[in-house]
Order: sequence, then C-alpha cells, then structure tokens
Amino acid sequence: MGDTQTAAIYRGKKTFTVEEVPAATPGPGEVAVRIAYCGICGTDMHVFHGNMDARVGFERVIGHEMSGTIDAVGEGVDGFTPGQKAVVRPLDHCGDCPACKAGHQHVCHKLKFLGLDTNGAMQEVWVVPAHTIHVLPDDLKLDHAALIEPVAVACHDVRLSGLKAGEDVVVIGGGPIGILVAMVARDAGGKVVVSEVNRTRLAIAQKLGFDTVNPADCDLKAEIDARTGNKGADVVFEVSGTQPGVDAMTAVAATRARIVMVAIHAQKPQIDLFQFFWRELQLIGARVYEPEDYEKAIAIVSAGGVDADTVITDVAPLADIQKAFEDLDRSPTALKSLIKVGG
Amino acid sequence: MGDTQTAAIYRGKKTFTVEEVPAATPGPGEVAVRIAYCGICGTDMHVFHGNMDARVGFERVIGHEMSGTIDAVGEGVDGFTPGQKAVVRPLDHCGDCPACKAGHQHVCHKLKFLGLDTNGAMQEVWVVPAHTIHVLPDDLKLDHAALIEPVAVACHDVRLSGLKAGEDVVVIGGGPIGILVAMVARDAGGKVVVSEVNRTRLAIAQKLGFDTVNPADCDLKAEIDARTGNKGADVVFEVSGTQPGVDAMTAVAATRARIVMVAIHAQKPQIDLFQFFWRELQLIGARVYEPEDYEKAIAIVSAGGVDADTVITDVAPLADIQKAFEDLDRSPTALKSLIKVGG
Repeated sequence: MGDTQTAAIYRGKKTFTVEEVPAATPGPGEVAVRIAYCGICGTDMHVFHGNMDARVGFERVIGHEMSGTIDAVGEGVDGFTPGQKAVVRPLDHCGDCPACKAGHQHVCHKLKFLGLDTNGAMQEVWVVPAHTIHVLPDDLKLDHAALIEPVAVACHDVRLSGLKAGEDVVVIGGGPIGILVAMVARDAGGKVVVSEVNRTRLAIAQKLGFDTVNPADCDLKAEIDARTGNKGADVVFEVSGTQPGVDAMTAVAATRARIVMVAIHAQKPQIDLFQFFWRELQLIGARVYEPEDYEKAIAIVSAGGVDADTVITDVAPLADIQKAFEDLDRSPTALKSLIKVGG
Repeated sequence: MGDTQTAAIYRGKKTFTVEEVPAATPGPGEVAVRIAYCGICGTDMHVFHGNMDARVGFERVIGHEMSGTIDAVGEGVDGFTPGQKAVVRPLDHCGDCPACKAGHQHVCHKLKFLGLDTNGAMQEVWVVPAHTIHVLPDDLKLDHAALIEPVAVACHDVRLSGLKAGEDVVVIGGGPIGILVAMVARDAGGKVVVSEVNRTRLAIAQKLGFDTVNPADCDLKAEIDARTGNKGADVVFEVSGTQPGVDAMTAVAATRARIVMVAIHAQKPQIDLFQFFWRELQLIGARVYEPEDYEKAIAIVSAGGVDADTVITDVAPLADIQKAFEDLDRSPTALKSLIKVGG
C-alpha cells in the first residue's frame, strides 16, 4: 500500500471520476480490506441517476457488493490475518436506539449504510469497522464472492418467510434480486415459480431452470392453482414494487400463506386486506440482513447454490466504471455487472 | 322437551317472528343444547339490516354467541352428560380442502358458520355437531358464558400476535370486539392503549381502566411515542376497518411490530408498504378461533379476566328479540346485548 490509492468518486450528473486519493489506514477497531471485485447494486444505479444526491453528496466513493482480502488491522482488532479473503456486511448501527436495544441492529433507527452514508468499495482499499467483516473460505473465488451481499438479502428474505422444503413458492418479479431469492428458495427446497413480464428476464429465469409464468399472457392465479391443486402458494415474495404485483401477492397466496415484502414501494398501493382476514395471510417486511444471513450466503455461494457464472454477466476494470454503469443502464440482458477493482 | 319449541326466525326487512317450531332431536354425532343466553353479534346486526339476505334467507334462526346446558346426545356421541353447562364453537368444516388438510379447519374453504349457514341459537334447543361442544365449569354463570364466543375471537387475535407480558399494545377501534381484544391483551400482560374517536366508547374504555387516546383530538403517533420512549407499539390490533385506522397501524408500530388485522375491510385501503420494508413490520390476518382459543376464553371468563358485568349492558327475553335488536341498533352506549332464551 503506497501513499495514494485509486478510487472512483461519484460527482453527480451520471458521472464518476477515477482519481488518486490519500491511502487509508485502519484506526482503532477498524480493518482495511483490499478490494478485489465490487458489484453494481440497484441502489448504486439510483445514485448514478441522481436520485440519492441529497444523501450521498458529490464526493462519495460508493459500492458495497464487494469481495477482497484483509490488508491491515487497526489497534485492538483480533481474529483477522492479512491475506484472508473477506467480505463486508455494510451496516453500522448506533447501539442505542429501540431497535438496537431489542437486538435488531440491522434495522437500527440511525443505521449507516457503508458505501452510501460513508465511503464504499469502489476503491483499492476500504477501511471499515471490524464488526462488519466476514472471513471467507480460502477456495471461494473472489468474483463469485462479490455476490454474497445480494445473496445475503435473499437469505434474509427466505429465512423470515419460514420456508420449509416442499412448499410452493411464487416470486413476483424476476430481476436480479428476484432471481437470487428464487435461487435461495430453491436451495431451501421450495418449489419455485417466477412471475415476470419482461421476456428477457423470463428467458434468463428459464435458463436457470425455473418454472416461469408471464402474467401478461395468462391468469397467474389460475396457473398457480393448477400447479398446487387449488391450494395456492405457501410462500410469496413480492419483489416487483408494483400495484399489479401487490394484487397478485394476495391472489396466489394459499390460506395462511406468508408473503414477504422485499420490494421498496415508494407509493402506497391498495391491498386486499379482506383476504388477509379471510385466509389468515401474513405479510412480513424484510430489509437487508443479519450476520447469520451472511454466513448462510457464504455457505450457499461456496457450495454452488447460486449459478454465479450465469448471474455475473459483465466484468469491467475500475478505470472503466463510467462505461460499466452506462452499459448496465441500457442493457436488456445484464444481470450482475462487477467492477474488478484490484489486480 | 315437548313436541314443539320456541324459536326466533329472521324473516327479512328488519323483522323477526317468534314461533313454535317442531322440537329438534340430535341425530348420530350430534348434541342438543338447551340455550340459556345468546348475545347479539355485529354479524347478527348485519343480518337484521338485510346485508346478508342472500346468505341466510328468510327462514333462518340466527345466533351463535350462546351458553346453555347439554340436553341430549345422539348416537355415537360420548363424553357429555345432560345438564352439563356448555358452549358451541360454531364452525363446521369440510375436512377435505387444502386448509383442512393443512390443519387449519377454522379457515376451511367451505366453512359452515352455524347460526348463519345453518340454524342457530335463538331457539330453546339447538342441535349441533358434537365436535363443536366445549363443556364449562359448573360454577361459571351462564350470562357471563355467553361472552365466550367473542372473547375467543379476541383470544385468537392475541395468540396470533405473539404478545408477551410487558409489551406495548395499541388497539385501534374501541367497539365491542376492540374492547374484548384490549381486555384479553391486558390479561396477557400487555400495556394497552385504546384508540377511539367515539366519546361514548372512550368513556366505556376508561371505565374499564384503559388508557385511551382520541386521534381526532391529538396526534396518535406522538402520544404512543411519548408513552414508549419513541419505540412505538410492539403489537397493534386494527379493529376499526377504516383508512385512518390503516394509516395509524403503521404509524404507531415499533420496528418489527406485529399488526393483527381483526377488522373486515370491504374496500381495499392504501397501505404504507414502505414501512413494512423499512421497519420489518408484520401483518397477521386473524379470523374466528381454534379450539384452544375457546379453552383460553373459558379460562379467562371463569377467572374474571373480562369485566362481564360491564360488558353485558342489556338482557331481554326471546319474546322481545325484535325490540332488543331495534334498541341495540340505535343505542349509543350498549356494548353487549343478550337474549335470555331459556327459563
């Protein structure tokens, strides 16, 4: 590590600059991670589009779907050795709010999301609090490991659903997160149907081996009823963020089904609350992840439970980050685009 | 039991006739219960108003919030002795649908609700399937026992909420069911606030010892935040069936709160789904009751856990059923009105 390092900085107006910045060193309680890969998250694309300028400003290094190796540890940090492969769970909590006191630090009322509220992983070395580090198995490929953060989101969603092997699952929305939720649900033994209207995404889901339904072409409820002996889906993941998705989530649900709210609904959709009463449905909100979800994601990615080579559709060097965001923004077929930061 | 018995028959157009009908005798697998008291449910009032004519017709004996004594048992029925005090859990299931097969008979897809889909308890002797009978302690007063059915609804709601002693509870809507939910939640150790806009109902809730808030007069969220150190309510019961109630249920909820949907929403209200994601809220639909809720309700009513003498505001003989419905329909202060059927 020299006196400077290369970093990509978001400057507003769909623009990144790649610059030399002072090299960071870990303070007490911190760890420096040398970044190998950093995936482009949907949230990063929101930043690129200027939708989060008030939150991130114009001097921010973004990025949090990363993998790397331990570079150095700060004072008072034990248990890590330089060279170990690692990922960062990019959440820093206050420890003092009602959510933290109740043990739900991942939904802390003053949660800082690393890479949005602080600088992130689109730079050579990233300094983070030691409690955010998860060490990886030596033999896990670092490009695959860049999927651990979004897979951990899916692991959290599936864990909160209480999915049991053999249950019928519908994933509403087959984008990058929906596909990972589908993969993790299948890994847990669920019989998964992916509902999606975009034909490119449908083709990808089919390539990944999923049963798919296009609700623009047929009656989704009838399709699910036919597959389940008129029972309906035991578990539904609403990942579309749309009113038709919200209509579908109650329509396809079995009596006493669990519906997981994965999508971020900026509007307030209308919901068929009568069905919640009549069939004793449950709606379960799910946000980010807890440490056990990271450990589960590491285990699944290590075991090949997600088809990483199909999910990762593009890799570009840090110097080309501007083009990588522009390409991803207009690609109809990309799933996960990685920035290769190190090496 | 003679050759005939007295029964109140719903004839449509807000009219009951009180008639002599052939005496019923229990067939195989059935039990005859001599009715002591039968409460007037909100659903019975819907029937009175003509809103359920298509379902109940014009020759129906309604009523299900009852108490009585075992009168006779049919062939093949064991375990009951004439003279035992008893209540009926008025649900008959098909045993063959996906909900029944999954063990959720109370939300059977073809559920028959006794006293709506079959004749009910507003008659001297009611013949029901033996599996619906719960025997009562000898010393339980039969007027109090007529509250067991609505208390069992509240017990189901509170059980599904997972309420633990010491948790903060908000009940949105202080009508008859809301008040019973509040009582059962208090009995379970919850710190209960009742939110209600009707001043008469507020006064009753206060008389019953509840902390109350009138959201027409103040900011409900601010009131709940002030009482909970800005945490919010751990458990919320939405019993109002209104859009403002649905708005309030997410506003007052703590991070990871459980919201129980008790009300029947005929419309599809708008819901702040973002809050479900952001604070990992849960919405839990709850309908009627299961056997264990009946046993819990019997225990609570027996132990004085609901203030039965305050909740029962009116008692009228079966001969006066017409006037009892008319009085309840226009009373601003009535909570539970009982028909005294026997004796």
